[in-house]
Amino acid sequence: MTQRRLITGFSNPLVKFLRSLRDKKHRKRERRFLAEGLRLLTDARESGVVPEMLVMAIGREPHPLLDELERAVAAAGGEIVEMDAEILSKVTGKDNPQAVAGVFAEFDTRLATIDRNAAPIWLVAQALRDPGNLGTMLRTGDAVGAGGLILIDDCADPFSVEAVRASMGAIFTQKLATARWDEFIGWLRGGPGQLVAASLRDPFDYRSAPYMAPCFLMVGNESQGIPADYEQACDLRVTIPMLGRADSLNAAVAGAVLAYEALAHLRKP
Amino acid sequence: MTQRRLITGFSNPLVKFLRSLRDKKHRKRERRFLAEGLRLLTDARESGVVPEMLVMAIGREPHPLLDELERAVAAAGGEIVEMDAEILSKVTGKDNPQAVAGVFAEFDTRLATIDRNAAPIWLVAQALRDPGNLGTMLRTGDAVGAGGLILIDDCADPFSVEAVRASMGAIFTQKLATARWDEFIGWLRGGPGQLVAASLRDPFDYRSAPYMAPCFLMVGNESQGIPADYEQACDLRVTIPMLGRADSLNAAVAGAVLAYEALAHLRKP
Repeated sequence: MTQRRLITGFSNPLVKFLRSLRDKKHRKRERRFLAEGLRLLTDARESGVVPEMLVMAIGREPHPLLDELERAVAAAGGEIVEMDAEILSKVTGKDNPQAVAGVFAEFDTRLATIDRNAAPIWLVAQALRDPGNLGTMLRTGDAVGAGGLILIDDCADPFSVEAVRASMGAIFTQKLATARWDEFIGWLRGGPGQLVAASLRDPFDYRSAPYMAPCFLMVGNESQGIPADYEQACDLRVTIPMLGRADSLNAAVAGAVLAYEALAHLRKP
Repeated sequence: MTQRRLITGFSNPLVKFLRSLRDKKHRKRERRFLAEGLRLLTDARESGVVPEMLVMAIGREPHPLLDELERAVAAAGGEIVEMDAEILSKVTGKDNPQAVAGVFAEFDTRLATIDRNAAPIWLVAQALRDPGNLGTMLRTGDAVGAGGLILIDDCADPFSVEAVRASMGAIFTQKLATARWDEFIGWLRGGPGQLVAASLRDPFDYRSAPYMAPCFLMVGNESQGIPADYEQACDLRVTIPMLGRADSLNAAVAGAVLAYEALAHLRKP
């Protein structure tokens, strides 16, 4: 039996600490983030990532996966905390009560940690502001066998609860890097890599483009798209047809349509 | 100069009415919904849909598109309301203050209003719960030249502020229908139409499937997918490759990847 810390009061400093991780400023200071729910935490564990702290509701339903999680956290020297379900639901947010949550150390997101040859596809998001879109891109990256997601300029925080949730566990399997544009383009040109922009300006159809691995597929900000000078620095600008009134797709959708197209080309014998 | 009603107090019944439209129960009772922002309202106007009531903030920036909007509403016999910016931002939600909003009559969403031969592609969502996903599917439908979106069983409300916003105006250009499964399948089999399911069970690759117009592309609930018996009733079950750890895509992403694939096939000479 592992040792558990018991929390029964809202005023406990740990409760305050956990709640503060919903806020970007505190996450950055603590270099920690929250992931909620048995499924997400199991995805993490199965990907070899174990929380530093596991928080469970008193009176929760027993579950074999929860037992495994607890053993893994204890084996890694992490802390096990139990608290009133009511308090835990304050921590995880009223709209999404979960019986379990974990505190993870933020990952190293320097470009230098990326091995570009580890995967044929990499997703790149520039000034992507919506955490749901960001998490969805991670999820899509996992699905197409991408290596990870590179965040350029001021993007939403990938460690926000919303992004982690939308990633459906891919935050633990996809590599993540953050960089300013100049830094990224310098790193990219230091090795092999084709940079492809989802563009509204270029008439090159995305279905017939010559994708080459390692292929870096970039989508831009939700309202502005990719800046014109960034686009010019790309090796390829491809357009997804827009047959209706609107002039753009949701950013995560554009990334996915492009990623699956590139995947089909790169998998051809 | 059109006649304008002026609202300067939070306690005005109209303010209460507008705020109540953020709530599904009230929307259904009033058969009205809210759309916010000049861009969305201009999309509506350019698609021939004018709000019954236009609400503008006092002290807003003048804008020629706003003038056009006001003229269109007045010409259609609608009401023009001005209110304190602070009150309007209570109406449109703190996180998304807008200087203008419109009240629209809900559309007729019976299947009988759909002309299936009007477009080669129709999107179908079954028990889709997230209003953002729903709006994103409308937006994708517009982009691929689909006729509209058919909502099966208990879906999120397409007239919610979140869905309307995520649709980026496509709520005004795409046809929308709601139906129970039995009703839908009865209607579908009463005419031409290929029903295609995004399936996790069938190994038929989505890239080589024989799509035929009018093609109805169905995605299922965010966590459950499409029920097995519904899938069996489809003409075609296609699978999008999943190369990573996760076993599914975001529902709106799956719909978009499928829709663009079908579009490419159906556009071939």
